[in-house]
Amino acid sequence: MKMEELVNYCKQYGFVFPGSEIYGGFANTWDFGPVGVELKNNVKKCWWKRFVQEDSKTYGVDAAILMNPKIWAASGHIDSFSDPKMDCKKCKQRFRADNLIEEYSKGVVSAEGMTNEEMMKYINDNHIVCPNCHGFNWSDIRQFKLMFETSRGTVEGEKDTVYLRPETCQGEYVNFLNVQRSMRAKVPFAIAQIGKSFRNEITPGNFLFRTIEFEQMELQKFCKDAQAMDVFNDYKKRALQFVEDLGLSSDKLRFHDHDKLAHYAKCACDIQYQFPIGWEELNGIHHRGTWDLSRHSEYSGEKLEYLDPDTNEKYLPTIIEYSIGADRLTLALLCEGYQKEKLADGSEREVMHLLPALAPYKVAVLPLIKKNHSAKAMEVFNLLSKNFSTTYDETANIGKRYRREDAIGTPFCVTIDDNTLTSNMVTIRDRDTMEQISLRIEDVVPYIEEKIKF
Amino acid sequence: MKMEELVNYCKQYGFVFPGSEIYGGFANTWDFGPVGVELKNNVKKCWWKRFVQEDSKTYGVDAAILMNPKIWAASGHIDSFSDPKMDCKKCKQRFRADNLIEEYSKGVVSAEGMTNEEMMKYINDNHIVCPNCHGFNWSDIRQFKLMFETSRGTVEGEKDTVYLRPETCQGEYVNFLNVQRSMRAKVPFAIAQIGKSFRNEITPGNFLFRTIEFEQMELQKFCKDAQAMDVFNDYKKRALQFVEDLGLSSDKLRFHDHDKLAHYAKCACDIQYQFPIGWEELNGIHHRGTWDLSRHSEYSGEKLEYLDPDTNEKYLPTIIEYSIGADRLTLALLCEGYQKEKLADGSEREVMHLLPALAPYKVAVLPLIKKNHSAKAMEVFNLLSKNFSTTYDETANIGKRYRREDAIGTPFCVTIDDNTLTSNMVTIRDRDTMEQISLRIEDVVPYIEEKIKF
Repeated sequence: MKMEELVNYCKQYGFVFPGSEIYGGFANTWDFGPVGVELKNNVKKCWWKRFVQEDSKTYGVDAAILMNPKIWAASGHIDSFSDPKMDCKKCKQRFRADNLIEEYSKGVVSAEGMTNEEMMKYINDNHIVCPNCHGFNWSDIRQFKLMFETSRGTVEGEKDTVYLRPETCQGEYVNFLNVQRSMRAKVPFAIAQIGKSFRNEITPGNFLFRTIEFEQMELQKFCKDAQAMDVFNDYKKRALQFVEDLGLSSDKLRFHDHDKLAHYAKCACDIQYQFPIGWEELNGIHHRGTWDLSRHSEYSGEKLEYLDPDTNEKYLPTIIEYSIGADRLTLALLCEGYQKEKLADGSEREVMHLLPALAPYKVAVLPLIKKNHSAKAMEVFNLLSKNFSTTYDETANIGKRYRREDAIGTPFCVTIDDNTLTSNMVTIRDRDTMEQISLRIEDVVPYIEEKIKF
Repeated sequence: MKMEELVNYCKQYGFVFPGSEIYGGFANTWDFGPVGVELKNNVKKCWWKRFVQEDSKTYGVDAAILMNPKIWAASGHIDSFSDPKMDCKKCKQRFRADNLIEEYSKGVVSAEGMTNEEMMKYINDNHIVCPNCHGFNWSDIRQFKLMFETSRGTVEGEKDTVYLRPETCQGEYVNFLNVQRSMRAKVPFAIAQIGKSFRNEITPGNFLFRTIEFEQMELQKFCKDAQAMDVFNDYKKRALQFVEDLGLSSDKLRFHDHDKLAHYAKCACDIQYQFPIGWEELNGIHHRGTWDLSRHSEYSGEKLEYLDPDTNEKYLPTIIEYSIGADRLTLALLCEGYQKEKLADGSEREVMHLLPALAPYKVAVLPLIKKNHSAKAMEVFNLLSKNFSTTYDETANIGKRYRREDAIGTPFCVTIDDNTLTSNMVTIRDRDTMEQISLRIEDVVPYIEEKIKF
């Protein structure tokens, strides 16, 4: 399925709506609808379960989005977190110069190491025109800040600029000692977080792939430097295992080592997924050395050293970062799960083959005939919805209702008919096999509980 | 417990840390620590389960924080969402004039209906001094905007101001038809959301009570006008039942009807909780009429009418809003749950009596003697943590570890000792009764599952 088709599909079935749509939209923002919010919440729950709940040495936090602005000086974002932008003087649209070059050359030329002058020269030499109006009348290239700025104003006359965090990890770094002390944690341990970050992205986002606000799921493992490479390799494995366990197929996943590293980094590796737009980053694992804690020590004046209680050794731990975008992973799962299938009778159905643990609704309760079966069906809904996300549908004929549940990925449909009224038996239909079995009502909860485990 | 004591308690035990603490903090922001993030997530899960999952006619969404700025024109926030602020010319601190008056009069005088001139006169007449420096040298009162502003910048030269949403509900209003159509929902139905909002609050926040970013849990019920008062009263009941079910005691909860209503509102009622700082709003139920949808129809040019498929009637639904702050509710639960208890042996213990469904960790796994029992204990941890949030602690003597688990509200402690090694039996200690029972390892999961249901 092409990305535009997926966008329409997601709107039609309540996964994702364009942000602020009735006002003509708002570029690179999306609102999760009733079905999508359940999917994304399940993605976050599975990640948290795997990497926080099941790991006795990982501690969660939820840090504020608005932080003391000195943090962004220490992190280097105030100085250097920007993109090379140029404006089309004809249509006034703004573009990233590096993207123009990479799109023009179909990815053959990388602008990553180019200076602004080199990019300008390439654009002029190749007469790259504006993708919007096809004009060729460019402004100079200027660095455009990616952090959203706002201001507080607690003190008269003082304009105190603050920033929407462009990454969540600083919330873990600055709380390193708070977490270590309150949890009496011993290195190696990790601090994990799920939360929103914001970047003033100008370029087209390819649906959920790149948005101006996005949710990160990430953890920072603090370790002795000698352990760091083992930890790095361990998280590469665990990160890959995780996305495979969620249902992404191995042949659409690959490791991609970074060629260019930040000056402080020892190594960095992405996991890429083959999206409809090509192979793109899904998550990253980065060896960050002691850079972050040393910068925060320097800028805050607080010693962020760890004191080993066994050896009395004092040191700044080395950090291995593992980070994955919740929106981007949700997009990958939608791309992977969608299938148009030919049925035996020649008709077609659209199915979203999501892992049951991820499915927005675990089960749909469907009265066969509304006027006869809806009261009993509502009883069954009330029973099931105490245990897991359940939807109820009494509109249209049963075939159409099955199709709709297939399309939103509901793994099980429970149909209520005369047999239910007389003998308390219901029919359970499986989304993938379309096979049906009969079960007593009281057996439905354990039957489904077993299937939706992650 | 006084609020300052609770702040220290929360830091010590990993519930909540001051935001950006190593940089001297950042006013009215707080970071949830490892224990607090689990508590707050459980609060959100319980709310979602009760009001979304178990209600066949409520649909969740997760709308973007950054929205088309026209939305805030339609909602009236751009014009009128501000507080009366004045500066102390001596110490340069900024204050809310209405708060100064209310604090000075110990709540006897309400500044709610006063004009700026009336407030200035009251402050001068009563010689209210600066709470910070005790000076009496005030600036004029000016309206201070509560929305955080930032800007996008997709088009050259154009400064497009955008806002951090000051409330989440607009995300439901603008998606009314998207949700209705994609879910084929019939009025009455509700759209629910949990998400962050931002307000540039200057005044002291009383810990989690008032913060510049906060998480709302709210729903908007769209109904026929004739049904609206029944829906309003129904949500008053359900809202009260919910916080009682979470463990807030009835004698610390009360309804508080608003004296002053927005011009479009028919009625509005808060539920107040008796915090250590006094009776304060915990949640609100508001009858909003057709104001929101009519404004968005007007400003967007899109007709937001509902077409009743049975009667062919077309109308703007009336909205009943039910909204509760996740941070504020978490604060109330901490205030309610904390107890210092005298034990039979004359010693004292601090306990956080949280409902098991809310407890950050459902169970702690404690090897009695580290070197003998930790391997087996880790096996038990791995078993339990597949099912619910579990903590592991092998430091200090068992008595101290029990105290720590009491303090963070862990309802069950599983102790691993020689008996576990020989006969697979563990001891389970109950936080509230401190009684212990023996269980086979394989019976622990169902035992706890039963106790933590909500």
